[in-house]
Amino acid sequence: MPARLWRAGVTSYTCDLKREGMFVFSASVHRRSLVVTLLAVNFVVIACISALAQSDSLPSWNDGAAKKSITDFVSRVTMQGGADFVPVEQRIATFDNDGTLWCEQPVYFQVAFAFDRVKAMAPQHPEWKTTQPFKAILDKDMKALAASGEKGLLQIVAATHSGMTTDAFSKAVLDWTASAHHPRFNRPYTELVYQPMLELLAYLRANGFKTFVVSGGGVEFMRPWMEKVYGIPPEQVVGSSGVVKFQIGTDGKPSLLKTAKIEFVDDGPGKPVGINRFIGRRPIFAFGNSDGDLQMLQWTAGAEGPRFMGLVHHTDAEREYAYDRQSKIGKLDKALDEAAAKGWAVVDMKRDWKTVFAFEP
Amino acid sequence: MPARLWRAGVTSYTCDLKREGMFVFSASVHRRSLVVTLLAVNFVVIACISALAQSDSLPSWNDGAAKKSITDFVSRVTMQGGADFVPVEQRIATFDNDGTLWCEQPVYFQVAFAFDRVKAMAPQHPEWKTTQPFKAILDKDMKALAASGEKGLLQIVAATHSGMTTDAFSKAVLDWTASAHHPRFNRPYTELVYQPMLELLAYLRANGFKTFVVSGGGVEFMRPWMEKVYGIPPEQVVGSSGVVKFQIGTDGKPSLLKTAKIEFVDDGPGKPVGINRFIGRRPIFAFGNSDGDLQMLQWTAGAEGPRFMGLVHHTDAEREYAYDRQSKIGKLDKALDEAAAKGWAVVDMKRDWKTVFAFEP
Repeated sequence: MPARLWRAGVTSYTCDLKREGMFVFSASVHRRSLVVTLLAVNFVVIACISALAQSDSLPSWNDGAAKKSITDFVSRVTMQGGADFVPVEQRIATFDNDGTLWCEQPVYFQVAFAFDRVKAMAPQHPEWKTTQPFKAILDKDMKALAASGEKGLLQIVAATHSGMTTDAFSKAVLDWTASAHHPRFNRPYTELVYQPMLELLAYLRANGFKTFVVSGGGVEFMRPWMEKVYGIPPEQVVGSSGVVKFQIGTDGKPSLLKTAKIEFVDDGPGKPVGINRFIGRRPIFAFGNSDGDLQMLQWTAGAEGPRFMGLVHHTDAEREYAYDRQSKIGKLDKALDEAAAKGWAVVDMKRDWKTVFAFEP
Repeated sequence: MPARLWRAGVTSYTCDLKREGMFVFSASVHRRSLVVTLLAVNFVVIACISALAQSDSLPSWNDGAAKKSITDFVSRVTMQGGADFVPVEQRIATFDNDGTLWCEQPVYFQVAFAFDRVKAMAPQHPEWKTTQPFKAILDKDMKALAASGEKGLLQIVAATHSGMTTDAFSKAVLDWTASAHHPRFNRPYTELVYQPMLELLAYLRANGFKTFVVSGGGVEFMRPWMEKVYGIPPEQVVGSSGVVKFQIGTDGKPSLLKTAKIEFVDDGPGKPVGINRFIGRRPIFAFGNSDGDLQMLQWTAGAEGPRFMGLVHHTDAEREYAYDRQSKIGKLDKALDEAAAKGWAVVDMKRDWKTVFAFEP
C-alpha cells in the first residue's frame, strides 16, 4: 500500500523536471539575505507547480473525456488571476469510499469485517452457536443468514461494533485489515483500492485541495487505515457513527465506550448534512458512484462558481465488477440519469482506467 | 483583527534572524540540480525552526511558569530524535472558545447574538411584542427575562437559530460580528479575543500543530468568523449543533435547513465525544478555562506520551474579568482542583499576560 501511495505521491510532488526538459535550479547558500532565499524558494515552488501542470499526474487514467474534465477543472480553479480561480482554503474535495475509492463487492467490506468479527469473538460468546443470525455465520449457512435480513445484519453490526472502547475497536479494525483477504482477489482488503483514484487524491492535494472522505461507512471503521492508504487523516474522514460515551474507569483512566445506538447515517441526504457538520464548507469537487451519493453531488453543484461532480461507473466485470441500476450494493440509477442530464463526469471504469488495482499484472 | 493575527503570524513565521543574530542565508539561482535546491530549502526551513525556537513567539506572555511550560513542551515534542518527539500528524491541539480564546462576560457572546437577533427579527414577528420571553428582550426588561429562566433562553435560541438555511444563518452571524458592540469595551465582539492566545495558536501552528476549537458554542455560530479571527478553518471547529435537513427547493436548488432540535452538546463529557467524532485522534495539547473543559483535559491527559493541559484563570477584573468557583458563566471549580492535583498549567491572566486584548492602550 505505501508503495502505491508513494508512487502516486512521487508523480505529483517531485516535479520530474528533467523528464519535462524544464529548467532545473540549484541554490548555493550564503550569508546574505533571507528575502533572496525565500524568493528562490518561491521560484522553485512555481517551477514545480508549472511542471506538475504539464506532467501526467494521472498515469493510470486513459486519455479521454473523463480525465480531461478533471485536469481542465483543476487548471481553471488553480490559475491565478483566471475567472474561475478558487482560493486554496476553498478547495474542498469530497469522495465517497465504497465503490469510489475501494471496491464494494461482493459485499461492503465493513460487512465482511463484521462477519469475520463474529468468528473472532465467538469463543467469548458460546451462546452464538445456537442463536441466529450468529449461528448462520459460524456455520457458513448463507441461506439462514439471508433469511435473517436487515434485522439480522443490524444485530451483527451491533454485536461487533459496540460494547468496547474506541481504542479496542480501532485495534480490531487494524488487525482485520492486516489479516483478512478478499474472496475473489485473495488480497488484503486495503489493496482493493483504485489506483487511478489514489492518483487523483494526490493530484488534487498537490494542487492545494484538501481531500475528505464522505462515506456511509462507519467512521470508526475507516479512520484507522485511511491515513496510510489514502493519505487522508482521521479528521478528514466523515462517516456514519454510533453514540459514544465518555467514562472514567476504576483505574482513573478515561475511555470512550461505543454503544449500539445509531447516531448518524452519512448516506443519501445525510451526506450534505455530514459535510455541513464536519467540514462546514461546501465542496467544489465531489466524487461518488451510487445513488447514495446523489445529494452530495447536488449539494456540491448547487452553488455559484466552478464545480466538479463525478461518478465512477463500474463497467469492468473482468478487472473488477460490472453493476449499476439493478445492483443491491452500490445501486447507480437516479444519479446516473442526473449525471447525464447535468453533464457531470461519468468515469467508465473499463474505458477510462488503464489500471484498476496496483497489483494487476 | 487581521492586523492582530498578522502580527502573531509574523512573529512566528518570519524567523527574525537578524534580531537573533543568527546566520542569515541567501540563495542564488542557477541551472544545476534540483536536489541541491531542495537541500537548501530544507536548510532554510531548519534554520527558521531553530530561530523560532529561540525568538519570542509569545511576546504578550510574561516570563514565568505558564509560558515556560508551553515553550518547554513544544520544544520537547518537536525535537527530532528526542525521547518525547511527536510526529507532525499527531500534533493535535484543542482549544475551548468562550473564556479561553475570547471573552465570555457579562454573558456568552452567542447569547448576546441571540438577543440582538430577537430585536432584528422582531418586525417579522409582531406577536413577540406581547409574548415572553421575547417581550422582555424588546422591552429591555431584565427582571422578566431572568424570570423566564433556562426555558426562556432555549426558546430564544430556538427562535433565532432555526427555521432558516445554514447560508442565511451564516450571513446573520457575519452581519452581527460586523455591527454589534460589547457593552463594556464598546468594541466588536471579535476584538474581544485574547492576544496571548492568538500568539499561542500561531506558535503551535508554526511548530507543526493542527489547531482546533472544541467549544460548547454552536458550530454554525463559530465557523463564519473563526478562520479570519483565529486562523482556524471551519473544518477544524467542533461545537454544539442542531439537526439540519437537506431539502431541494421549488427552484431546484438544494439547501440545508436548520431545525430547532438539538443534536449534540459539545460540553463537559461531550467534549471528548466531540473530539472523537470530529477529529478522530486524541489531542496532545488542550486548553480550557472552566469545568466544562474538565473531561477534554482528562481525555487529553489519559494516554501515554507527552501531554499538555492548560487552563486560563480569569484573575484580572481591571483588564478583563475576575471569576472562578462561584461564577454562573465559565465556572472553574473542579477543573481548578484537578489542575492543582495533576500539575496542569494554570494561566493567571493578571500575572501571566502582558497584554489581554490587542486594543489595549
